[in-house]
Amino acid sequence: MADNQETKESLQESLQQVIALLNKHRLVEELVHKQDMPKHDLVESLVHKQNLVELQKKLDELHPADVAYILESLPLEQRLEVWDLVKAERDGEILLEVSDAVRQTLIADMDSDELLAVAEQLDTDELADLAPDFPKDVLQELLDSLDIQNRERLQSALGYDEDAVGALMDFDIVTIREDVTLEVALRYLRRLGRLPDHTDKLFVVDRNEILQGVLPLKRLVVKDLDLTVAEVMADDAVVFHPEDKAADAAKAFERYDLVTAPVVDQQRKLVGRLTVDTVMDFIREEAESDMLSMAGLREEEDLFSSVWKSVRNRWAWLAINLMTAFVASRVISLFEGSIEKVVALAALMPIVAGIGGNSGNQTTTMIVRGLALGQVSSHNARSLLLKELGVSLMNGMVWGSVLGLIAYALYNNLALGLVMTGAMTLNLLLAAVMGVMIPLVMTKFGRDPAVGSSVLITAMTDSGGFFIFLGLATVFLL
Amino acid sequence: MADNQETKESLQESLQQVIALLNKHRLVEELVHKQDMPKHDLVESLVHKQNLVELQKKLDELHPADVAYILESLPLEQRLEVWDLVKAERDGEILLEVSDAVRQTLIADMDSDELLAVAEQLDTDELADLAPDFPKDVLQELLDSLDIQNRERLQSALGYDEDAVGALMDFDIVTIREDVTLEVALRYLRRLGRLPDHTDKLFVVDRNEILQGVLPLKRLVVKDLDLTVAEVMADDAVVFHPEDKAADAAKAFERYDLVTAPVVDQQRKLVGRLTVDTVMDFIREEAESDMLSMAGLREEEDLFSSVWKSVRNRWAWLAINLMTAFVASRVISLFEGSIEKVVALAALMPIVAGIGGNSGNQTTTMIVRGLALGQVSSHNARSLLLKELGVSLMNGMVWGSVLGLIAYALYNNLALGLVMTGAMTLNLLLAAVMGVMIPLVMTKFGRDPAVGSSVLITAMTDSGGFFIFLGLATVFLL
Repeated sequence: MADNQETKESLQESLQQVIALLNKHRLVEELVHKQDMPKHDLVESLVHKQNLVELQKKLDELHPADVAYILESLPLEQRLEVWDLVKAERDGEILLEVSDAVRQTLIADMDSDELLAVAEQLDTDELADLAPDFPKDVLQELLDSLDIQNRERLQSALGYDEDAVGALMDFDIVTIREDVTLEVALRYLRRLGRLPDHTDKLFVVDRNEILQGVLPLKRLVVKDLDLTVAEVMADDAVVFHPEDKAADAAKAFERYDLVTAPVVDQQRKLVGRLTVDTVMDFIREEAESDMLSMAGLREEEDLFSSVWKSVRNRWAWLAINLMTAFVASRVISLFEGSIEKVVALAALMPIVAGIGGNSGNQTTTMIVRGLALGQVSSHNARSLLLKELGVSLMNGMVWGSVLGLIAYALYNNLALGLVMTGAMTLNLLLAAVMGVMIPLVMTKFGRDPAVGSSVLITAMTDSGGFFIFLGLATVFLL
Repeated sequence: MADNQETKESLQESLQQVIALLNKHRLVEELVHKQDMPKHDLVESLVHKQNLVELQKKLDELHPADVAYILESLPLEQRLEVWDLVKAERDGEILLEVSDAVRQTLIADMDSDELLAVAEQLDTDELADLAPDFPKDVLQELLDSLDIQNRERLQSALGYDEDAVGALMDFDIVTIREDVTLEVALRYLRRLGRLPDHTDKLFVVDRNEILQGVLPLKRLVVKDLDLTVAEVMADDAVVFHPEDKAADAAKAFERYDLVTAPVVDQQRKLVGRLTVDTVMDFIREEAESDMLSMAGLREEEDLFSSVWKSVRNRWAWLAINLMTAFVASRVISLFEGSIEKVVALAALMPIVAGIGGNSGNQTTTMIVRGLALGQVSSHNARSLLLKELGVSLMNGMVWGSVLGLIAYALYNNLALGLVMTGAMTLNLLLAAVMGVMIPLVMTKFGRDPAVGSSVLITAMTDSGGFFIFLGLATVFLL
């Protein structure tokens, strides 16, 4: 039995072994190149092959998810060497496991015959995950090769928005009629011989495939065999529509602790199912994409993507950041006269701006999270704003006084100290107002408040902080 | 059948209805207070009661998760009013659903008898989730009231680290012997009458409770009834130990698409099970806590917590930020002489520092994520660093030139433009080095790289950026 601790250690070990074998293989190659002696050729190429065979054996033993992990951990060149060694019939299941960015690098390395061979090993819902990364002509060839039902399924799955339920659902559904007894149902299952992964319930439909209810396996195995499916089934199951938002479905899975759930069309006809493993992947990806976009990355990035690709991924946010920094710079230049007279202002102003940015980001993060959980809306915006203003006032007076004292001590200028305290407090209040309002306004305009809130709030507290501090100083110190 | 779309809408609607009823109730209360007429008393108190009865009825209809959602969305005062209306026998299931911060506010409102009554409704693993928030004396009374097996279970569950498998596991295990046939197994289950939530497999143990394998229900219902459990069971199931890290278990659940998994002690004796719903909650909480700590919040915060509590939660990071800002300020003050001579430096320096911080955060986020997924370690640190340096060099030359030109245009000073370009490039290179090294070094010292990386990198790029820019300017412009 696989022990988790062992599994984890051996995963790290597997990676180390693969790298060691790759390095050995490379060493031999270099030797062959350098010496260029025909006499040695045979020996070298034997050693060479032996390493590759060993590596291939190692890869064959690993779970597809573990091969995916190794591929993601290797720089591009080594990654493609390993990819070439993976058995063709395992390509499909491994492509499904790797991240989008890494998948693109692997698919770019495959020709159309290889891709079509992969497609043959997969179910339609799995194909729908890979197909968008296929070259256009291969995708067309693939569609032509499918039977009508599967072609329609694939086309409709490709038609759904990436974050709709339709894009996540699969078609591994086992249906049953409501008028049969559990005994008959069990006999039917025994004839089937096996059930799809994650099957925790059967879907009860009428002759038109209209969903009537669900029959959990754990009821099927404990209830009296003479009862009918209709008597035992749950008719209040949570159902989804293909066009529902995946994020809402994920919340429902968490809220109601689901393992699988039926997906139906407007006429309640069963069209697919959603499983908890897909939902878990979705939640993980959403959380990561929020984190990445908050840090100013446009999308998930392959760790070893080319410099050029990375530059493009990060360009957009750097450019926005540059513009906001430029605005802040112009605010400062308004007060160049004041800075010339009291040069200490130049040294103190980044503190005011920096603390405001930090505090504003704390507020925004709270609000973004509350919005994501559906707990923040217009009905409580006012009480949230009041609370954040209270927090800012308190922080401003305490930290502002500390900094005011330090400024007074450093520059022996009481008025400068008071300006510092006042500016800190005002900028923290600005940060509170903006920290609450920016995500709310973005949501109102239908934008994702996680994306860019942080940049906007920092822009406000930078320019605002410089303006407040230098403005107060100009009025009271000169 | 509950349609998801309807469910979601009615959830928002429920919240609105609860608020409306609360407001009505308050209006009546105010009227009573203001008029203070004994004649009206009876009428008012009737209307008053009627609203509360309606509200209570509304709450009774809702799923515990939905009541939890409403409680979390209400400011403290209204939250406690609603909480008082929740039926005592539902307190337990609802407390399990609310977030830690909100749970504390609810428990603070309950006396020890109410808490002990709640404890009676719950399983040991559920108790283990709530008990840490109980007052000490109530917890002791609770332990005294349990039988030996449950007391031992509760004490051991409380003993595990919050992020260990032992703290997440439950004890809803159904076991079976390997020498019986499937027919006997099914008869046994039918006698049991019901199975715990999420049961997708039975655990096969010997007479000493040592785990032999697992029997998935979906095999039980399709295999020949004459086969023995031993012939049908899977003996390569993934198992966990109570002291395993929950984060590793979560990765295994995602990697191997598990719904439930057995937890065994060192002797392979079955001690509990882990379910996918608990794991999903854990993943969600981890992702959120990473996001919160990256934004400088110490822990999860109740949206409506008191100002004082919020201030304490945010204090630590603000203080650290203040210190780093102070250091940056001292760096600037080193060059006050230069700024006095060329005051444009004061306006331009925040741009250099800001872009460096943004770029460094992009790099750190990539690395932190790679570390979390186990894809980054010493074997590829060098190639990652080279890539990031390449990205920075490219960004520095492009954006640095743009800003250099702008500075030249604004101040008509070529040397200033060149200093700007050079400083931008150098600070971006510094950001790349620090962005890769800081999370790696933090991991080496056993710290969570998600916590504080962002503050550290910004501190480096701020102080570094000011020093590089003002230093270059002092050397080349004066």
